[in-house]
Amino acid sequence: MRIGVLTGGGDCPGLNAVIRAVVRKGVTVHGHEFVGFRDGWRGPLEGDTMPLDVQAVRGILPRGGTILGSSRTNPIKIDGGVEKIKENLAAGGVDALIAIGGEDTLGVAKQLFDKGVKVVGVPKTIDNDLNATDYTFGFDTAVNIAVEAIDRLHTTAESHHRALICEVMGRHAGWIALHAGMAGGANVILIPEKPFDIDRVCAYVESRFKTRYAPIIVVAEGAHPVEGQMALQAGELDSFGHVRLGGIGEMLAKEIEKRTGKEARTTVLGHIQRGGTPTAFDRVLATRFGLQAIDAVHDGDFGVMVALQGTDIVRVGLAEATKELKTVPPGRYEEAEVFFG
Amino acid sequence: MRIGVLTGGGDCPGLNAVIRAVVRKGVTVHGHEFVGFRDGWRGPLEGDTMPLDVQAVRGILPRGGTILGSSRTNPIKIDGGVEKIKENLAAGGVDALIAIGGEDTLGVAKQLFDKGVKVVGVPKTIDNDLNATDYTFGFDTAVNIAVEAIDRLHTTAESHHRALICEVMGRHAGWIALHAGMAGGANVILIPEKPFDIDRVCAYVESRFKTRYAPIIVVAEGAHPVEGQMALQAGELDSFGHVRLGGIGEMLAKEIEKRTGKEARTTVLGHIQRGGTPTAFDRVLATRFGLQAIDAVHDGDFGVMVALQGTDIVRVGLAEATKELKTVPPGRYEEAEVFFG
Amino acid sequence: MRIGVLTGGGDCPGLNAVIRAVVRKGVTVHGHEFVGFRDGWRGPLEGDTMPLDVQAVRGILPRGGTILGSSRTNPIKIDGGVEKIKENLAAGGVDALIAIGGEDTLGVAKQLFDKGVKVVGVPKTIDNDLNATDYTFGFDTAVNIAVEAIDRLHTTAESHHRALICEVMGRHAGWIALHAGMAGGANVILIPEKPFDIDRVCAYVESRFKTRYAPIIVVAEGAHPVEGQMALQAGELDSFGHVRLGGIGEMLAKEIEKRTGKEARTTVLGHIQRGGTPTAFDRVLATRFGLQAIDAVHDGDFGVMVALQGTDIVRVGLAEATKELKTVPPGRYEEAEVFFG
Amino acid sequence: MRIGVLTGGGDCPGLNAVIRAVVRKGVTVHGHEFVGFRDGWRGPLEGDTMPLDVQAVRGILPRGGTILGSSRTNPIKIDGGVEKIKENLAAGGVDALIAIGGEDTLGVAKQLFDKGVKVVGVPKTIDNDLNATDYTFGFDTAVNIAVEAIDRLHTTAESHHRALICEVMGRHAGWIALHAGMAGGANVILIPEKPFDIDRVCAYVESRFKTRYAPIIVVAEGAHPVEGQMALQAGELDSFGHVRLGGIGEMLAKEIEKRTGKEARTTVLGHIQRGGTPTAFDRVLATRFGLQAIDAVHDGDFGVMVALQGTDIVRVGLAEATKELKTVPPGRYEEAEVFFG
Repeated sequence: MRIGVLTGGGDCPGLNAVIRAVVRKGVTVHGHEFVGFRDGWRGPLEGDTMPLDVQAVRGILPRGGTILGSSRTNPIKIDGGVEKIKENLAAGGVDALIAIGGEDTLGVAKQLFDKGVKVVGVPKTIDNDLNATDYTFGFDTAVNIAVEAIDRLHTTAESHHRALICEVMGRHAGWIALHAGMAGGANVILIPEKPFDIDRVCAYVESRFKTRYAPIIVVAEGAHPVEGQMALQAGELDSFGHVRLGGIGEMLAKEIEKRTGKEARTTVLGHIQRGGTPTAFDRVLATRFGLQAIDAVHDGDFGVMVALQGTDIVRVGLAEATKELKTVPPGRYEEAEVFFG
Repeated sequence: MRIGVLTGGGDCPGLNAVIRAVVRKGVTVHGHEFVGFRDGWRGPLEGDTMPLDVQAVRGILPRGGTILGSSRTNPIKIDGGVEKIKENLAAGGVDALIAIGGEDTLGVAKQLFDKGVKVVGVPKTIDNDLNATDYTFGFDTAVNIAVEAIDRLHTTAESHHRALICEVMGRHAGWIALHAGMAGGANVILIPEKPFDIDRVCAYVESRFKTRYAPIIVVAEGAHPVEGQMALQAGELDSFGHVRLGGIGEMLAKEIEKRTGKEARTTVLGHIQRGGTPTAFDRVLATRFGLQAIDAVHDGDFGVMVALQGTDIVRVGLAEATKELKTVPPGRYEEAEVFFG
Repeated sequence: MRIGVLTGGGDCPGLNAVIRAVVRKGVTVHGHEFVGFRDGWRGPLEGDTMPLDVQAVRGILPRGGTILGSSRTNPIKIDGGVEKIKENLAAGGVDALIAIGGEDTLGVAKQLFDKGVKVVGVPKTIDNDLNATDYTFGFDTAVNIAVEAIDRLHTTAESHHRALICEVMGRHAGWIALHAGMAGGANVILIPEKPFDIDRVCAYVESRFKTRYAPIIVVAEGAHPVEGQMALQAGELDSFGHVRLGGIGEMLAKEIEKRTGKEARTTVLGHIQRGGTPTAFDRVLATRFGLQAIDAVHDGDFGVMVALQGTDIVRVGLAEATKELKTVPPGRYEEAEVFFG
Repeated sequence: MRIGVLTGGGDCPGLNAVIRAVVRKGVTVHGHEFVGFRDGWRGPLEGDTMPLDVQAVRGILPRGGTILGSSRTNPIKIDGGVEKIKENLAAGGVDALIAIGGEDTLGVAKQLFDKGVKVVGVPKTIDNDLNATDYTFGFDTAVNIAVEAIDRLHTTAESHHRALICEVMGRHAGWIALHAGMAGGANVILIPEKPFDIDRVCAYVESRFKTRYAPIIVVAEGAHPVEGQMALQAGELDSFGHVRLGGIGEMLAKEIEKRTGKEARTTVLGHIQRGGTPTAFDRVLATRFGLQAIDAVHDGDFGVMVALQGTDIVRVGLAEATKELKTVPPGRYEEAEVFFG
């Protein structure tokens, strides 16, 4: 078989580990050959390919990013896009496709499968918000990067008398904030799933200042106050209700300073959560995902996504995988609340 | 309630995170008070205690080691040991005990429970070889430390023409070697569960030298050759069949040099796998274990051990937890073999 | 002798290492005793002290922050402040003072010395902009943190087609940006010492996009465009000519997007550059500074600051140390320019 | 000009950074072209070359190892070796040579220069024992790796009651042990320059066990006891007086256990000190060395080695650079002794 591979959506540590595992097992064990499509769905849409063999994947296991490049090109939104992809796959003699990506990429994979394309999906999101898998690779790396930052903020918080805010990724789901905040010993964790009460946040800040430690607040970029608080003006929230300008971290700092009279400073981790070498957990998970994905192709088991359940790598239907976001359940947030204040 | 806490056995990153979670939730939410027993079972055996309150656990979350100290004292092997512990607990007004430790510590906990002591166990082993839980804290940290070392060895292997051997922990189970080797891109992984064929190992080494990369071999300290190989002399294997002198890594290096004529060097990570700050994964797991353990005590649910199953923290019987070692199953080793050579 | 110790100004990894070295050598070798003043000059001003002996400094070597606390209290700006300090020192039986801090803290030390107080200074600034010493501790740590972030941005830059901007500390001197940018392989480095030409920056960005790599720009927070560029409106620059709102990183991203039509994203490292465990270089430097400072006190050599010259720790007059900022000389910037674009 | 580049001797983080700087400035600023010689002096000896242009050095700055490969081939020890190199350089149209390496490599460079070859040297040794330069790249990385390991050992030492020994590199000079031990807060540091008294070491160990902390001993691989101690048998010391079998760390552990009755465990860091990504300090130093080396070639200033003096990169004669080892002076060791015990 001749199998195409592509990576779509935002950067995520572990993409290269998946590609390597797919190619190594596909060539060595199953005897398949591979073609790489560049920049996500743009590759098959425009017929932009690159060679992909054992030599091409040497040494990429520990490297962040993706040797195939990525983009947010969505063929569904392009007139005749899906047909164009089918034509290009046929013209290139591509028998099957492994699509590595998040909700959007897998949604396209699902539609292509429904139209007869032989496709297997590999879930990818640093936000960990994909249904049907316990974890996605990249998440553990992002959490560790955030925790390392929070550890560093602690020493400053202990020595100076300042509230320190760390804004982490998570537009719709608070997994990174929850795990990083819990692991980092944050005094408050704010997530999109639960609008926060600014009065309560400030009460935590003030009670903390009475000890010799200063407060550290971990806030997901998609967190927001309960309606009516923090006097947001028109245009400062976007259509999801997220803070638009300067970010919620910055806005929170200003509000805390105003209400408590204490200095507050914000660190915005941004893209450093998405890059660099993956943790051991993510390398193992990505490698095992890749092995299972090529096995699924080899078995002729299409329309599936590989997933982690407990310690097993399983296959689930693409439909199940993409039907809704996995957000933080209340019970998990309550665990963390024990340590607030 | 007045609750005793102790930590037994070898060092393991995350012990302090468990202690903190137990005390924080126990005091703040449930209103209990605590007493720390020093140095594992030596503490209750000799009545050696230390204060353990919210102040005592401040700032310990990211710190390796254990503020309670540890030891390998086993009261079962001491005449009247178990009775002495029961007396000391009664004398100190201790209503229940949380024992954090590995197979040995939990085995004692089981026996004490059978004799009427109210005890809850928290599993701890960097080797990840405890039954009934998907993972134990400390394991992820150990694997990451080993992977960082292997990453460093790669650049030397690429630039010089040497076989590099990394010996990691794992006397009876190869989990650290398996995960670190897979994440580190090792060319061969040797684990206790599967005696290795030195001819095959040397064949991998030689085939690797034909590329511009040199081989990296990850070996668990408990790995050993198939019977009759490597000309081991009387006294070089202990009663488990493990290499006794200098370690298997050192012995393997000598054997590879002798058979292939290539230089081979060994790094023995030793205790650095057991110390230092835990990874985010281990901090979250240890914290959640602590929360569940104190809830079990509060619920009066004794004779149980907390465990990770999927993403949930559950309670399992101490008997189930301690009945046998969890070793690497053949299927997991076969996954890794795809990348050998 | 009874010697007071204080730490002033912003957080800086290595402060605790200085304190430990001062106390360990002072007590063990010279037989002095110590008192800690809390929160910089606020301590002697208000007579707020804490015990400082060998036990108090145990285990603090690797820890960021300062066990003494810090503040920006400036007794010179307080009516009768300097006299109040002299009184409190006399009342507390304090024979000499070791003041660890930056330009402001050492400026106060200089004035106190001029008024007869026996004081020795230890230089501290993560910005590395203090005259008379080759390096200050904290700088190496800050640079390494920034480089780790830049390394992570590279993988995203390679896989996606975006300009990535990393804003680092350095309000008046570009040392962190220069070293981090050079070590991180940045395509452009912007420092306060040299106003940048936005046209040239955009030309670098565009030329880089023609390769398969995307540009990474490291910008010191105090960097600014040449006069008249980037259409800054009234109020967007402060009295030093620094960008006020959102930061120069954010503003640069917007300008690059506007001019090149490419996406640009900013990471603001903020306080994580100031906290956490010091690098080996900073621990050794801070320890040697502490040893030299207590020797100076013991020798009765007051009015001096300890300094690094080559591999030697020497003593220089406080006046020399504080007379002007050490900014990046043109030759060092030209070295880095070789790699631009 | 057509310029050859080679890297000789053991692995050292920063080699690639030197190569990149040489080529980038050589091509972009000076307009030279380059050829890479493979595996140190073996390359010019056998005429084994590889292309070396701007494309070849892209992305190598943060990577350990050397893209040119290395070896310990010494042409001086080969009959007609130096003449063969001259012939091959002439035949390949190579006008000048940049040799990056340690004492041996630079010694060959010196002899070639004496025989009319246009050569510039770049010093490389993780041991930091080269004369005429304040530091060599690779040393800072090695020290940081060792300190990270020592930090991890501390938590085990605090929680268990064991002496922990960390063996680091340094066969003839104790720089890594001195800096790592000082930065890591070791209780004893043993270096080759000063034979140790095992009675005194054991006294430190015993006094430390009386506190709640256990001792950590950092030992350079070349350290050895004063004559007559530790009952070394014939054949256990090599011709330098270094411990031959198992290493000094292992031997010290046994001796401490025998004399004090306490458990002692050894970690041997080995090659992980030599590999992996360089620290920021080493990347900047290596880059600046490369820039100065290509400038020297461009200036026609041959027979020199680049060196760090204070914060300046200078040129010194190859003769001066290679005349003797730079060992730890007594004053630096006495600084560290303040913290012993």
